[in-house]
Amino acid sequence: MNKEYNTVRTTSNEQSFLPINPFAEPTTTMSSTTNPNHPHIGDDDMIDIDFRNTTNEKLNSGVMNVDLVNTRYDDFQTIDWLKDLMRDRFRHRLLRAKTRQSFLNKILMYHDAWSGWLCVLLVGLSAGVIAGVIDIGTNWISHLKHGICLNAFWLNREQCCWASRNLQYTNVNTEECTEWFTWPQVFGTYKTGAGQFLLSYIMYIFWSTIFASFAVLLVKVFAPYACGSGIPEIKTILGGFIIRGYLGKWTLLIKSIGMMCATSAGLILGKEGPFVHIACCCGNIFSYLFPKYGRNEAKKREILSAAAAAGVSVAFGAPIGGVLFSLEEISYYFPYKTLWRSFFCAMVGALVVRSINPYGNGHDIQFSIDYSVPWASFEMIPFILLGILGGLWGAFFIKTNIWWCRFRKNSRLGQYTILEVVGLALITASIIYLNPYTRMSMSELIKRLVSQCRVEDMIDLCDYPNSQFVTGKSKGSVGLAGPGVHRAIWQLFFALIVQVALVTFTIGVKVPSGLIIPSMSIGAITGRIIGIITEQLAIQNPSFILFRHDCSKEENCVTPALYAIVGACAFLGGVSKMTISLVVIMFELTGGLTYIVPLMAAAMTAKWIGDGFVRGGIYDAHIELNGYPFLDNKEEFNLTTTAEEVMRPRPEQRSALAFLTQSTMTFADVENLLKETTHTLYPVVVTREQPYVVGQVLRRDLQIVLKSQKMHRYRLSSTVIQFTTTSEATLNPDYESDNQPEQQLTANSEVIRVGNLLDQAPIIVTDQTPMETVIDLFRKLGLRQAFVTRNGRLRGIITKKDILRHIQQMSSHNSEATYFDN
Amino acid sequence: MNKEYNTVRTTSNEQSFLPINPFAEPTTTMSSTTNPNHPHIGDDDMIDIDFRNTTNEKLNSGVMNVDLVNTRYDDFQTIDWLKDLMRDRFRHRLLRAKTRQSFLNKILMYHDAWSGWLCVLLVGLSAGVIAGVIDIGTNWISHLKHGICLNAFWLNREQCCWASRNLQYTNVNTEECTEWFTWPQVFGTYKTGAGQFLLSYIMYIFWSTIFASFAVLLVKVFAPYACGSGIPEIKTILGGFIIRGYLGKWTLLIKSIGMMCATSAGLILGKEGPFVHIACCCGNIFSYLFPKYGRNEAKKREILSAAAAAGVSVAFGAPIGGVLFSLEEISYYFPYKTLWRSFFCAMVGALVVRSINPYGNGHDIQFSIDYSVPWASFEMIPFILLGILGGLWGAFFIKTNIWWCRFRKNSRLGQYTILEVVGLALITASIIYLNPYTRMSMSELIKRLVSQCRVEDMIDLCDYPNSQFVTGKSKGSVGLAGPGVHRAIWQLFFALIVQVALVTFTIGVKVPSGLIIPSMSIGAITGRIIGIITEQLAIQNPSFILFRHDCSKEENCVTPALYAIVGACAFLGGVSKMTISLVVIMFELTGGLTYIVPLMAAAMTAKWIGDGFVRGGIYDAHIELNGYPFLDNKEEFNLTTTAEEVMRPRPEQRSALAFLTQSTMTFADVENLLKETTHTLYPVVVTREQPYVVGQVLRRDLQIVLKSQKMHRYRLSSTVIQFTTTSEATLNPDYESDNQPEQQLTANSEVIRVGNLLDQAPIIVTDQTPMETVIDLFRKLGLRQAFVTRNGRLRGIITKKDILRHIQQMSSHNSEATYFDN
Repeated sequence: MNKEYNTVRTTSNEQSFLPINPFAEPTTTMSSTTNPNHPHIGDDDMIDIDFRNTTNEKLNSGVMNVDLVNTRYDDFQTIDWLKDLMRDRFRHRLLRAKTRQSFLNKILMYHDAWSGWLCVLLVGLSAGVIAGVIDIGTNWISHLKHGICLNAFWLNREQCCWASRNLQYTNVNTEECTEWFTWPQVFGTYKTGAGQFLLSYIMYIFWSTIFASFAVLLVKVFAPYACGSGIPEIKTILGGFIIRGYLGKWTLLIKSIGMMCATSAGLILGKEGPFVHIACCCGNIFSYLFPKYGRNEAKKREILSAAAAAGVSVAFGAPIGGVLFSLEEISYYFPYKTLWRSFFCAMVGALVVRSINPYGNGHDIQFSIDYSVPWASFEMIPFILLGILGGLWGAFFIKTNIWWCRFRKNSRLGQYTILEVVGLALITASIIYLNPYTRMSMSELIKRLVSQCRVEDMIDLCDYPNSQFVTGKSKGSVGLAGPGVHRAIWQLFFALIVQVALVTFTIGVKVPSGLIIPSMSIGAITGRIIGIITEQLAIQNPSFILFRHDCSKEENCVTPALYAIVGACAFLGGVSKMTISLVVIMFELTGGLTYIVPLMAAAMTAKWIGDGFVRGGIYDAHIELNGYPFLDNKEEFNLTTTAEEVMRPRPEQRSALAFLTQSTMTFADVENLLKETTHTLYPVVVTREQPYVVGQVLRRDLQIVLKSQKMHRYRLSSTVIQFTTTSEATLNPDYESDNQPEQQLTANSEVIRVGNLLDQAPIIVTDQTPMETVIDLFRKLGLRQAFVTRNGRLRGIITKKDILRHIQQMSSHNSEATYFDN
Repeated sequence: MNKEYNTVRTTSNEQSFLPINPFAEPTTTMSSTTNPNHPHIGDDDMIDIDFRNTTNEKLNSGVMNVDLVNTRYDDFQTIDWLKDLMRDRFRHRLLRAKTRQSFLNKILMYHDAWSGWLCVLLVGLSAGVIAGVIDIGTNWISHLKHGICLNAFWLNREQCCWASRNLQYTNVNTEECTEWFTWPQVFGTYKTGAGQFLLSYIMYIFWSTIFASFAVLLVKVFAPYACGSGIPEIKTILGGFIIRGYLGKWTLLIKSIGMMCATSAGLILGKEGPFVHIACCCGNIFSYLFPKYGRNEAKKREILSAAAAAGVSVAFGAPIGGVLFSLEEISYYFPYKTLWRSFFCAMVGALVVRSINPYGNGHDIQFSIDYSVPWASFEMIPFILLGILGGLWGAFFIKTNIWWCRFRKNSRLGQYTILEVVGLALITASIIYLNPYTRMSMSELIKRLVSQCRVEDMIDLCDYPNSQFVTGKSKGSVGLAGPGVHRAIWQLFFALIVQVALVTFTIGVKVPSGLIIPSMSIGAITGRIIGIITEQLAIQNPSFILFRHDCSKEENCVTPALYAIVGACAFLGGVSKMTISLVVIMFELTGGLTYIVPLMAAAMTAKWIGDGFVRGGIYDAHIELNGYPFLDNKEEFNLTTTAEEVMRPRPEQRSALAFLTQSTMTFADVENLLKETTHTLYPVVVTREQPYVVGQVLRRDLQIVLKSQKMHRYRLSSTVIQFTTTSEATLNPDYESDNQPEQQLTANSEVIRVGNLLDQAPIIVTDQTPMETVIDLFRKLGLRQAFVTRNGRLRGIITKKDILRHIQQMSSHNSEATYFDN
């Protein structure tokens, strides 16, 4: 009965020494080369448990029904890209092989080839629709704080007036409108005065608090993952991490509603960042329609990358910027195909938003600019100054915000999330109502700040009494600022302080909140102030050496509105540390190809200055704060260590490395190992004394085999489990060198061969491999673990988490040196 | 004397079995971990040849002076990215370590951090200047074919007339101008008629031939690498291949001049593709100013990627498109830093070109479009038709062009390159002069085709007798086409045939030649023709179901000029298989954000249709034709093979694998091995019987050691060369298992230890690793070779060329299946 096995064990030790091809025969079968992740569900070839030593035994069919192919990862696990992609290739190969069989399969094949495009189309469409709905909803809810359309409460002020009087959109805000009732009017007070102001003020605070409470309650009760911007988490997910439910239906719904409420509440937060999260939710949900993506975490991330691009695209109407944002900031694994698909997805999203037309201005471009004066070269100085301020702001914001978030986490404040939001909303509303520039929504403020003064503008900001506006395409003003401008500067300055103070405490509370618009708003205010100062300086000293070339007493040379755009770019750059995508987004947002150089200069300066203080952007900081296992694929690490110093067990620890031997471990040994350790994967080596790596086995698979084998009660715990197929065993010359007592099998000990559980393609590095190479390997192939060997002998294992820990240790050592690495 | 060595050999075989940490002691020193590529020039630690067995012998200082550190690659070699990047990190680390020593070093450090930016700045500037000069030069030389400015021969027609009469640019072409003499006028014939036409015709052919001959002679005599577009070669170079002189000064100079001549000769070729080559030459030349880049091939490719972006940027005034082109089409290794730097470089280039203003129109945008009618949804049908035609054209062109190039290569035609070009120029000139649309330069033709008809246009193409042009921003014409349009269509149709026929034979001749503009021109002609047809159909059948919604008898709904743009995009897409970069370039080229959807649809269709016939674009086809070792980093291979089936020696071959043993080979053995084989690198294993990989050694290093050791004449050829340091030898438990006769060293045999030549960090894969993973590894890490092991034992080596050969074999097997892979 055991004859065959014994034959194997006594294979003669004739070895051919030259050439070194002891296994020269092509012994591997198809199924053993491609089995690592068991892509074929329910395929009977799967478990090649060889029962030939227990000949008359029937194959227990129950074994085969065990779902070995559960490819789902557990929550908070790291995915193995390499294996997932391999699985997809295998699936694809199977599908293609079947193509020749029938016409239906051919159609299935075509469907498979198209499904990626179809999926991103659906994602783009849905992201666009949701963005449009949110924009319209936010607009309506925001106006509720001021008043109500009594005839049709579902209309916002503009629609209400428009419906009743056919007014042009641009005039609506200034003219009175009979259908729209402000709250004092609703309560019957038509007088102006302190009472009316107070009533408006209270109603404003009341509604703000209501909206904020609603938002936080929704998040708290239904979808805790819906808070924040979601970008750090999405970066982590795209980096190969599983967070179940983070991109689910409930998160999508609650985030959409919560975002409308939170934005309308007047809190200093934006809805542009969360759009990325929402689009990714769409991506995740639709990917389940296509098993190719839904059931393969690595492939699903291709859809999510495209969805992230669509998110930015619908938020800003910037499809190219969206793709670059996804490429630069969010995505981890971005194959060539994804680039094109992301663009398609982003484009579809942008078109849908455009056709819904939530801004109601018929423009494709959110902050359309059209300045009459080109920028002069001396203006580079204030632009770079804005860049410096943006960088400083970024560093300040990241540091204080992280400090506050950490404080919130560790103190008792963390337990009162609802109270915190309600309190914050109360404070925010009572402050921002008092300043005309904070009272309007931040998008409106930005739009106003980046607009050039024209003849028809009667607002404070455009109070240039001596100016000679040229009508038509207005030719800019020359003239000293009037009292209105001075007043506006002071008000803007206070608005700046208010926003800076509030945003630091707002970002991180448990409502959906983005920081793109707040950053831009703060930047735009700073920019406009600096712009006005520069303008006035140039007007008062036209003969000063800097201004002499471009400015004169007659013609204006400085457009303060341009400074607002540049400031917005610089401040957003300082916080997010984006570069090319930021410039492209700003350029698509404003439509101004001419101003790309100032934007670049500002973004670049902001990044460099910011990097001097804080490495990485706010998203990276939040990833670190939350301790997500994210291995940055952009950073260049300068490590002097080798794999030996990072692997576990560490050489100096002398602790045991959990491993399996190929053919000498008994049922009991394996059971014990699984009991004592909790690893997801075990290396398989030749023998204990010759720890040469043969392959790797998943814990899950082992458990299933053990479980199935336990059913045969008469099996001894001394049954030997061999990770070989018969052919391998006969050919492997390493066998006869094992002669340890534990391997002296009794004549009638049973052998179970589970060779097909063995993944014979582990990733191996030598212990002297520099860590930079190891990190490159992990990042670029998306590994979860690698075996460390020396002279072929297994010495340890490196996992992604080991690497992250090591990087953190090293960076705390030499953090001051990072400045040179850009 | 040999006691120590013997001690090593008799180390007891006590091994600790659990944990598997036989080498648990941290024995490695810093120098051995980082030595692989000997970054420190002349460092005395380099060769740790241990002479302790020949105690009284003096260290021959000559050994140390040998330049072990020749990091330059030979011509036509593959570079090893991993090692090159490691070398750079080491350099950087050294520099940073020195920073603390002195202030000067600190400045050097800053210089080092900035040098990348400085370098791309210089590249952008120079690329911009050269592009401006070439544009102006081409313009001048082109006009020489028609006539001359007698007062100032260095002026082209426009400048000549402008100088003499202060004409507006737009009027110059139509009005007579006294200073500009056509050739008949120069020769005294002022009459019009057959004679004058013949004279013009002959002069045109004469000058064309002269220019073409000059171009080909220059290329032939001075810089053979200056021919073609250079993009396939640059892709190969960026993919990690060395072609000496391809990016040199001479190539730059000759290509610039040759390009002006070839374009002016009227040959059906463009100068946009070669701009990429020229910019890369600038990149290469400037990189030598910064040793960080100039002396490190991997780092140099970062500059070259940025330069390629600048090349496209200066060619089309499209900085974002340039970056995306570099990212999508050209670059191989594109780290995050490079993206931003490329954008900077491209931006600088575009700004320089703009300030030189070679198009003389003050526009930033080459083919500025401003259509009065938006596109209607039914137009998607002709747009997609254009996409299909573009795809078919691409497939047709690639196939015939490659066929012709192969024919040229293999037949006697290849020996008469000069004659070929001269003949081609003769034929081209005599044909194209006869058609007004081919007589003008292709850029001019494209510009005319993409322009909407306006009131002031009197050309054939705009002959709509019943049209009601609305002045101002002209509102498009409604009306049946007049006889002029019919004539124009026929002429365009013949122009199309002429260009299609000629371009196939032109691309590939020995002059600088790009095919972007010819493709666009052919596409624009096709597009315009289809546009006019659609327009006429819509006008004649306004009530037809398709047209009913958007068209009426009163208002125009089709802009034929838009079709020209879409056609240009589709045909270029069919040939180059570009996607996102193509759309962005077209969008930047035309300034039309509104028309991005038609452009996308056309580019997408063209790519899909084209991929059905030919995989990859024209550049890939030329790479394959020339047999460059380029491992495509975009393609997804669907291979079922494993590393075992690709490695050499193949299992079934049983031929010898060249390797070194760690401590048992004699001087003579090593010498023989080097004589018998020509590999650049040898694996080092423990012993012949235990072929466990210890590391790898470069042939070059071995040769140097052998040479230096030969000086000691009294050394025996039985001297043993050990790739160990002392510490390793004493600790390595594998030693005692070698007991072959050849290792029975005589008591007084000498031992030389060259442990520091050994790179202990080779990349190892198991023989069961799927080839897809191996290819991923090679592509993403830029490997040159990897060792294949099984159970730790060395079985073979895979090099980049093995992989390329394998891919070629596999793709010829199942080429029909590729259609599904998009």
